[in-house]
Amino acid sequence: MYKLIKTDKHSKARLGTIQTAHGEIQTPFFMPVGTNGTVKSLTFSDLNSIGAQLMLSNTYHLNLRPGMKILEKAGGLHNFSGWHKPILTDSGGYQVFSLAKLRKMSDDGVEFRSHLDGSKHYLTPESVMEIEKTIGSDMVMPLDECAPYPCSYEDAEKSVERTTAWARRSKDHFYDTKMTENQKLFGIIQGSIYEDLRERSAKELLEIGFDGYAIGGVSVGETVKEMFDALRWVEPLLPSDKPRYFMGIGYPDQIVKAVGEGIDMFDCVLPTRFGRHATAFTRRGRVVVKNAQYAEDFSPLDPDRDIPFCQEYSKAYLRHLAMQGEITALHVISYANVHFYVNLMHQMREAIKEDRFVEFEREFLEEFNSELRHAI
Amino acid sequence: MYKLIKTDKHSKARLGTIQTAHGEIQTPFFMPVGTNGTVKSLTFSDLNSIGAQLMLSNTYHLNLRPGMKILEKAGGLHNFSGWHKPILTDSGGYQVFSLAKLRKMSDDGVEFRSHLDGSKHYLTPESVMEIEKTIGSDMVMPLDECAPYPCSYEDAEKSVERTTAWARRSKDHFYDTKMTENQKLFGIIQGSIYEDLRERSAKELLEIGFDGYAIGGVSVGETVKEMFDALRWVEPLLPSDKPRYFMGIGYPDQIVKAVGEGIDMFDCVLPTRFGRHATAFTRRGRVVVKNAQYAEDFSPLDPDRDIPFCQEYSKAYLRHLAMQGEITALHVISYANVHFYVNLMHQMREAIKEDRFVEFEREFLEEFNSELRHAI
Repeated sequence: MYKLIKTDKHSKARLGTIQTAHGEIQTPFFMPVGTNGTVKSLTFSDLNSIGAQLMLSNTYHLNLRPGMKILEKAGGLHNFSGWHKPILTDSGGYQVFSLAKLRKMSDDGVEFRSHLDGSKHYLTPESVMEIEKTIGSDMVMPLDECAPYPCSYEDAEKSVERTTAWARRSKDHFYDTKMTENQKLFGIIQGSIYEDLRERSAKELLEIGFDGYAIGGVSVGETVKEMFDALRWVEPLLPSDKPRYFMGIGYPDQIVKAVGEGIDMFDCVLPTRFGRHATAFTRRGRVVVKNAQYAEDFSPLDPDRDIPFCQEYSKAYLRHLAMQGEITALHVISYANVHFYVNLMHQMREAIKEDRFVEFEREFLEEFNSELRHAI
Repeated sequence: MYKLIKTDKHSKARLGTIQTAHGEIQTPFFMPVGTNGTVKSLTFSDLNSIGAQLMLSNTYHLNLRPGMKILEKAGGLHNFSGWHKPILTDSGGYQVFSLAKLRKMSDDGVEFRSHLDGSKHYLTPESVMEIEKTIGSDMVMPLDECAPYPCSYEDAEKSVERTTAWARRSKDHFYDTKMTENQKLFGIIQGSIYEDLRERSAKELLEIGFDGYAIGGVSVGETVKEMFDALRWVEPLLPSDKPRYFMGIGYPDQIVKAVGEGIDMFDCVLPTRFGRHATAFTRRGRVVVKNAQYAEDFSPLDPDRDIPFCQEYSKAYLRHLAMQGEITALHVISYANVHFYVNLMHQMREAIKEDRFVEFEREFLEEFNSELRHAI
């Protein structure tokens, strides 16, 4: 499904395409997060005009609401929602650990109570495959055990072992149940902050063989250096003909840095979460719109970007709306933020095409005033 | 500013245009309500794609936030907000009575405490003119005294007298201070549910002379019959060469009925308020999206309307989003509702053009299952 078009001459940045049943994706790319089957505050026509290529959604949440009975009747999430571009679904492993109450783990699976209504649920690698089959995701993540941070070596080792065992069962079930040929299954590399565990996890998953590889258990509280270590340890092991996904990362400068380290796929809640808190990402850093300094700043939200919301809405006006709790402000800033991320990926693809990624990265980190300008 | 193009052959429905410094308006028309300078949950590009011709905003609210200092620096609400079509501003008289705390009325003006922070404010007919000058509204409503419901004859009479006196002072100040030629001043007819008071109010205002006439003090709790009585008593007195505005009305079927009685202008919070409560207006009546009956209803929100949000979003999907509190649902339904109102006005203009308004009204009221099918 992945085709490497070229690697940047002076970095590991990769330009490629991914074929899915819902269209071709240009890589590297960013996936707006649609936890409940919608990207918060945006419509699909917004996502289309932004140029988003894919929506990420979440097995844990969709399984609770609207539930599989409705999604089955609708014929999957594409039909249910009306979003006809590719969908990737996270397995819900992360949510079981971060949201669910009273979880009980075993080698077989995980029992937990819903964070919504306390109802009891049981997930196994096989049942998660069934759920994602019903959802009809183009890219499917298997159930994994996401180690917390900090995490002892022993616990991290156990989570690697369980994640490998579950990955194998996921793949077996995936093929046994003849999930459609159009669905592609990823492996998720765990191992916390331990080099040998990260390597072991990657090697075990490579041996099983997946359509793509994700680096999971990152952005869970560790330092940025530890996050990038996890990437650098496993990247050399990953085959060049499969897509690589750095899960849940991150801030714009982290994404730029990770593209330079050979990553193709990203997702993050930050653009919409910051949008709902009226904070905008721009090339020159963040604009905290509610700050008093913007009360009489009639300049555009982001003069650098030639899209209506960034040009026509001033900081002062958006501040006024945000102070009044007007949804319009959160909608406009969420739109602008998702556009910022999606547009950033587009700019990086252009830079890789022309072998000027290193220059692009340096300029971006400089203008963004990023800490990542310095060695990490 | 108003030009009557034609009157429907079989009803009082009028087709016309209004010239403003920010463009020509086709009448009859509906004004989406942008209390704080934005239509709740919508962007200006939404309003433009809907075909909204004007935004209504509110003097009381804008005077409190962002305040006149900022609007003056910005050069008015058009510049501040980036909305470059016409703006009508309500005087805030209604809000002083419905929202403000501890108000103290005198013939001179009204003192009140802000509903936001308790700060003390004083409004007079003249100061309201100044505020609307700063806002730069194309259509300006003067400060009036909106009688509550129910209201004794004596109190209603006093409010008519004060409203007339304030209207005269407003007009004097309006011309004295050389408000721009592009700003047009309306008179607001009061008189509660008393025929002679309504007539007296209209006549007194006509004698002073305004650019347009509004019927105020309606939709304050009275019956629909009383609301339409107020309209029918004064409509015959109103000149045909000025626009007529039925303030704050109303439900779609009430608007259709009032157009047939010779009204040109409408505003109402219902489309966006119902939108935020996930209730959609359709030609066949209301769709309360959260109702359980829609959980597995995969049909479009409104199959009758050929716009993306009505066609591509199903009731079941919107119900799921609304149940999860997703802003996207409220945004989509608000958009669909404002479109419903704006589109309804368009359909009525077409019907008047072709002298088939009575037929249109009958069909609409029938399909909408309206109580107004029967005599009121």
